[in-house]
Amino acid sequence: MQRILSDQLTPHIGDPVRIAGWVHRRRLLKSVAFLIVRDAAGLAQVVVTDPAVRATVEALSEETVVEVVGTVVANATAPAGVELTDPAVRPLGPPAVPPPFDLYRPALTATLPTQLDNAPVALRHPTRSAALRISAAAVAGFRAALDARRFVEIHTPKVVASSTESGANVFALDWFGRPAYLAQSPQFYKQLMVGVFERVYEVGPVFRAEPHDTVRHLAQYTSLDAELGFVTDHRDVMAVLRDTIAGMLDTVGERAAAALATLGVELPAMPAQIPAVHFTEALRIAGAPAEEVDLAPAHERALGEWARREHGSEFVFVTGYPMAKRPFYTHPDPARPGHSNGFDLLFRGLELVTGGQRLHRHSDYLAALAARGEPVEPYAGYVDAFRHGLPPHGGFAIGLERFVARLVGAANIREVTAFPRDLHRLTP
Amino acid sequence: MQRILSDQLTPHIGDPVRIAGWVHRRRLLKSVAFLIVRDAAGLAQVVVTDPAVRATVEALSEETVVEVVGTVVANATAPAGVELTDPAVRPLGPPAVPPPFDLYRPALTATLPTQLDNAPVALRHPTRSAALRISAAAVAGFRAALDARRFVEIHTPKVVASSTESGANVFALDWFGRPAYLAQSPQFYKQLMVGVFERVYEVGPVFRAEPHDTVRHLAQYTSLDAELGFVTDHRDVMAVLRDTIAGMLDTVGERAAAALATLGVELPAMPAQIPAVHFTEALRIAGAPAEEVDLAPAHERALGEWARREHGSEFVFVTGYPMAKRPFYTHPDPARPGHSNGFDLLFRGLELVTGGQRLHRHSDYLAALAARGEPVEPYAGYVDAFRHGLPPHGGFAIGLERFVARLVGAANIREVTAFPRDLHRLTP
Repeated sequence: MQRILSDQLTPHIGDPVRIAGWVHRRRLLKSVAFLIVRDAAGLAQVVVTDPAVRATVEALSEETVVEVVGTVVANATAPAGVELTDPAVRPLGPPAVPPPFDLYRPALTATLPTQLDNAPVALRHPTRSAALRISAAAVAGFRAALDARRFVEIHTPKVVASSTESGANVFALDWFGRPAYLAQSPQFYKQLMVGVFERVYEVGPVFRAEPHDTVRHLAQYTSLDAELGFVTDHRDVMAVLRDTIAGMLDTVGERAAAALATLGVELPAMPAQIPAVHFTEALRIAGAPAEEVDLAPAHERALGEWARREHGSEFVFVTGYPMAKRPFYTHPDPARPGHSNGFDLLFRGLELVTGGQRLHRHSDYLAALAARGEPVEPYAGYVDAFRHGLPPHGGFAIGLERFVARLVGAANIREVTAFPRDLHRLTP
Repeated sequence: MQRILSDQLTPHIGDPVRIAGWVHRRRLLKSVAFLIVRDAAGLAQVVVTDPAVRATVEALSEETVVEVVGTVVANATAPAGVELTDPAVRPLGPPAVPPPFDLYRPALTATLPTQLDNAPVALRHPTRSAALRISAAAVAGFRAALDARRFVEIHTPKVVASSTESGANVFALDWFGRPAYLAQSPQFYKQLMVGVFERVYEVGPVFRAEPHDTVRHLAQYTSLDAELGFVTDHRDVMAVLRDTIAGMLDTVGERAAAALATLGVELPAMPAQIPAVHFTEALRIAGAPAEEVDLAPAHERALGEWARREHGSEFVFVTGYPMAKRPFYTHPDPARPGHSNGFDLLFRGLELVTGGQRLHRHSDYLAALAARGEPVEPYAGYVDAFRHGLPPHGGFAIGLERFVARLVGAANIREVTAFPRDLHRLTP
């Protein structure tokens, strides 16, 4: 008899079936025992009345892997309206050591550090696994949206010869006797690949040696990067980003509906056009001094409230950030000196995505580095490539874990990361 | 006027259109000049007769980014049967420095090291970009095949606290003052995640400090990993692998047909069931001594010929490899002591995929490590998780670059890798 999953029971009412999974919970009442089996699809209730089977069930510890053969019976009071009766129960392995917290309670009561220390079992809790299912769906949506727009997926080096994008916060390693660094982003590679495919994306790990211990920083995270050529300016990039996020939300809704329900999350609506405000206007809306060169968290919150109030949108673009606060490869705004064609996308008052138009002329790179007093040499392999013809281009990067954390309302990014890496954590 | 791509010209015959791309080639004849523009979709021929436009075209160097507005005219002798006439030609950037090789010739004549040194431009050659398009399609097919079978995508740490899978060939790094290592595979993490989702996959970089300089080793490559629980034995894994490779080939055929044509590659047929031979039988077929514990390259070639001759298959499974040659987490064959439930998949006489059933009982891990004289401590975070109940499971890993190299018949894996990393190469 082929195994079926717990969400496939209803069509089999009256039939004998075989299920398998983990002992999620046992309820040993006087005249009957209930065995709740958890599998990839959810929970199944098994009703035990036979004394010999009950003895087997009593000896099972939580998380032991079992197989159950029984008859599917409709029962309006059981989960999903069905349960298994007359079961034969067989362990598929030795009795499990129960985890140091109860997985059957609606919420994990263990502290986050305890959960993270015991990640292999903590992630089995429906709330933790739901976040990872949403994450998987979000990435699938990212790729589908860009595939449909003729983007090509690339894979770029994660070990580089110079700590390019910013001198600080890089991990150093020994590469066959030579100094090397973990890549902080695929920024340069995705730009170079615009010269090959015009439109590219990459889903991959990036590494930041963040010395801060905060709820929103990880030392390794999954970056969803896209870059496209032949743009007029940053607004073409913003349009693609809007469609990409819309595609991510759609796919989460389609593929992870049960996970959303588990977490009680409602997906935000994506407006046909996300409202966009220039940085100088953003300062005014947020009530910040006109001479500020960046937005503080309180300003971002104020902008989020403004977007919801004035435009009914949970999303808002801020454009024209001061050049001084953007990386050297940022394209300036030709019409407003000192301001850039770089943007941030805020979601519910928090920065979610950074992007913009990049420089595309070799001479502009030389000038930009000179203006910042930086040498060309560490960037040579990257900057030299611009001598060979690159079109006007731009792109964006979405931090996957940050996206999911904001979507599900997680207080700490580690709640939506399977095995986080940070200042303190290198295991499991 | 919105830009269109070079493969969208035919529906616009008689219309003015705007295209953009790179100057691929110029042919300056006496009475007419031809400008070949390359974009993401291919090549477009522009016919220039006006003297002023001709002067512009004469001043353009190869790889300069240009925009052309012209009228689409049918011409059976032009590429794709159409060309642009009466053009206005406008550079979108400064004149490009031509690369140190001709991109317009059918094959890149530069040596592979020269190509790799100049990767940002070498990859623009249709043969090099075709391989990367096939690679992108193969990954999309991998994911689609597994998504359809309820696998969940995961993202696992690339920096780990102990050099677990094999002591040698790891890159060491400094993690906030602590020793750490680049992950050689997601092996342990994908096994642990079977406890969460039953079926998982990951597409990501893995790192091997290979001290060899060979045509088939990279120090970073993209690993396509899958793992599934509730298997009877390795044959369930082989069945999923067969379907996964079939899905990869199908998607390559659908999404990268033009790239296959560029490289003159015909996709192999995937049999409904891949022939499988036990290791001891494989030795006999290959004419190798019965006491051998591994297959030499010549043996694999002989098996490839045997599979084609006897089964009309380009693929063949070898099962039951001796335990001594497989990693400690390999499940033994209960019926044949000394042999494993591990397998290799050979493609055209070369090993393409390694996989197998894994141990799933905590006590078996302790015994396996003890039998090899290895301490448990470096593996503790991994081995301990098996105390909490994991079902019988197994999986496989496909090296993406190796898969593509064999599919397209590349002599060196670096020909199908955008920016390879190896013993000697850390740039670009």
